[in-house]
Amino acid sequence: MTLNVALAMPAHTARALFPERSLDTLEPELNLLSLEPIQDFHAPEGKALLAEADILITGWGCPMVDDAVLDAAPRLRYVLHAAGSVKHHVADACWERGVQVSSAADANAIPVAEYTVAMIILANKRVLQIARALHTARAEIQPERLFPDMGNYRKRVGIIGASKIGRHVIRLLAPYELDVVVADPYLDAAEAAAIGVELVTLDELVASSDVVSLHAPSLPSTKNLIDAGRIEGLRPGATFINTSRGDLVDQDALLARVERGDIYAVLDVTTPWVLPADSGFYAHPNVLLTPHIAGSLGNELERMAASTVQEALRLSRGAPLSFRVRAEDLGITA
Amino acid sequence: MTLNVALAMPAHTARALFPERSLDTLEPELNLLSLEPIQDFHAPEGKALLAEADILITGWGCPMVDDAVLDAAPRLRYVLHAAGSVKHHVADACWERGVQVSSAADANAIPVAEYTVAMIILANKRVLQIARALHTARAEIQPERLFPDMGNYRKRVGIIGASKIGRHVIRLLAPYELDVVVADPYLDAAEAAAIGVELVTLDELVASSDVVSLHAPSLPSTKNLIDAGRIEGLRPGATFINTSRGDLVDQDALLARVERGDIYAVLDVTTPWVLPADSGFYAHPNVLLTPHIAGSLGNELERMAASTVQEALRLSRGAPLSFRVRAEDLGITA
Ligand SMILES: NC(=O)c1ccc[n+]([C@@H]2O[C@H](COP(=O)([O-])OP(=O)(O)OC[C@H]3O[C@@H](n4cnc5c(N)ncnc54)[C@H](O)[C@@H]3O)[C@@H](O)[C@H]2O)c1
Ligand SMILES: NC(=O)c1ccc[n+]([C@@H]2O[C@H](COP(=O)([O-])OP(=O)(O)OC[C@H]3O[C@@H](n4cnc5c(N)ncnc54)[C@H](O)[C@@H]3O)[C@@H](O)[C@H]2O)c1
Repeated sequence: MTLNVALAMPAHTARALFPERSLDTLEPELNLLSLEPIQDFHAPEGKALLAEADILITGWGCPMVDDAVLDAAPRLRYVLHAAGSVKHHVADACWERGVQVSSAADANAIPVAEYTVAMIILANKRVLQIARALHTARAEIQPERLFPDMGNYRKRVGIIGASKIGRHVIRLLAPYELDVVVADPYLDAAEAAAIGVELVTLDELVASSDVVSLHAPSLPSTKNLIDAGRIEGLRPGATFINTSRGDLVDQDALLARVERGDIYAVLDVTTPWVLPADSGFYAHPNVLLTPHIAGSLGNELERMAASTVQEALRLSRGAPLSFRVRAEDLGITA
Repeated sequence: MTLNVALAMPAHTARALFPERSLDTLEPELNLLSLEPIQDFHAPEGKALLAEADILITGWGCPMVDDAVLDAAPRLRYVLHAAGSVKHHVADACWERGVQVSSAADANAIPVAEYTVAMIILANKRVLQIARALHTARAEIQPERLFPDMGNYRKRVGIIGASKIGRHVIRLLAPYELDVVVADPYLDAAEAAAIGVELVTLDELVASSDVVSLHAPSLPSTKNLIDAGRIEGLRPGATFINTSRGDLVDQDALLARVERGDIYAVLDVTTPWVLPADSGFYAHPNVLLTPHIAGSLGNELERMAASTVQEALRLSRGAPLSFRVRAEDLGITA
């Protein structure tokens, strides 16, 4: 079956996702209506492409696919999002009219998990703290005297959320001799055992882990999940990693604890993002900040694009979507 | 069979390797002659223990087990080294008299490989460079403009040496979507394929890899293996990681290339170690130095100890050593 495909996203997003080579592989099973993406659903070129499209491949910066868009797209049956969350791209109208939706959130989970695992290993060994001490001293230093608790052997790593990212972190950590525990109200002990980890309560996780890594999505139910009490509950020497969203964490309580000097933090996300120039997070040596880079960037966009093209190819062969998103999932997913 | 065991190493090494719990598990199959290690083979207490020992468990700082030591140890049949290389602990006399030798080099390879993998992932994504830029700017920055080549998707990682460490790096990288190649004159293409990587020449590896990680041992044949020509051959944007030994690398050529600003370096070892305070390596933002910490430190010593205790238990059960070192291996191993 030949399906008509249109892209819908800013031109620079399309260029980053689809270097020319990768669009070649769309043919012959898929008929790409135009190499130019739809940037405005209501402009004449946009409307012309919408009129023919069976599949819309959306990306970061694509406007909402809502009633008006669907009215202009009589053949449209699939929205394949070549990025993570579809919440800012897929309006209720899509679910109501039975448009099938897929996302590349699984592909986007990979770099976040990779970043997280690297930070876990370096944190338990105090590698970045030791590097800083050496660059400062420019002389021999005594790492084990500075950090008697260093090392990755049988340390406990607590994963908050068996989300796509949390599960990939668990998978990547399997060959390490670490004790990995998970807290997630939507996971039962049998499922946890099946993925090779122990299910614990969030409070137990926080109190017993050497590294606590946050992978629950931002939802009304997860706002301030890591509140002042839980931040107080972190063990001295613990490292808190946040690649999820800032609003899950009491930022003031976290900064206060960091400034006491007995925990470490690796923060790829904060509230607000960007932090004000006078934020204490910038200055404290126990904090490593990155500007929301754990997800797909650079060549990692091509992985999301490849995953999306695979979804389209599956449709053209009559196969079901691999990464279908359903309306009823949205309440507990990113 | 009950075997008499003596420890031979400085007291602080013994304490780090064997917290009391772990020595309990030596019993009952193994008869630990004393909780106190032999610190001087020629002192009376040392001689008394040597006279009874079937197994000597050695550690960092243990003096050479040579003819004089063996003369004082009529029952000694096994030297089990609870650390990496045995070259500074086992004299020719051991090989000549048929003493069996084992080492915990496989256990010691694990943390080095873990450090390496973390550094590979962060390097391809430019994470530490971006973190530094953010901490400096204290404002929004544009990572993809600063580092258009960022990302871990399908980058090439070149492993020099299918050594214990090199092989564990390869194992840990298996779940990543990276193109891993290896250069090693003692490996053939079939063996490379069996461990899931492609065998290439060293020059090809250097010229084509985004990250080059050095895991060959320091030997007369590997001195200056990474010479000025190969350093020149590194791709612009490449990261060179050295957790092996400084003398495999032309340090001056490496520094000159780093100072040109188009490569990155992560150096856990240098020649000389310690670098002089005015070394350009300390100052350059593209360099991350750590003070020879990739190997076992902190709780990671307990992994080497556990591996050594397992070896002793195997002997007490009449099983062969798992990590036997043979004299003829020493010419090409660390
Ligand atoms: N830093 C980045 O660049 C980046 C990139 C991608 C995603 N993210 C963020 O990472 C987070 C995880 O993303 P994902 O795609 O893995 O999420 P996901 O949609 O797969 O997460 C859904 C799962 O989270 C778990 N969960 C829900 N509520 C929970 C709670 N209260 N406690 C613990 N677990 C709970 C449930 O298992 C649920 O199935 C999100 O906040 C997302 O926005 C960040
Ligand atoms: N940074 C640290 O803390 C730390 C800790 C442990 C080991 N090390 C160092 O790491 C290096 C590797 O240690 P290991 O135990 O994995 O080594 P190993 O003894 O297992 O290495 C032996 C293997 O190296 C390969 N090899 C030999 N010559 C080679 C050459 N010219 N080119 C490529 N490969 C070659 C061969 O496959 C050989 O079998 C050594 O230099 C060791 O001293 C450093």
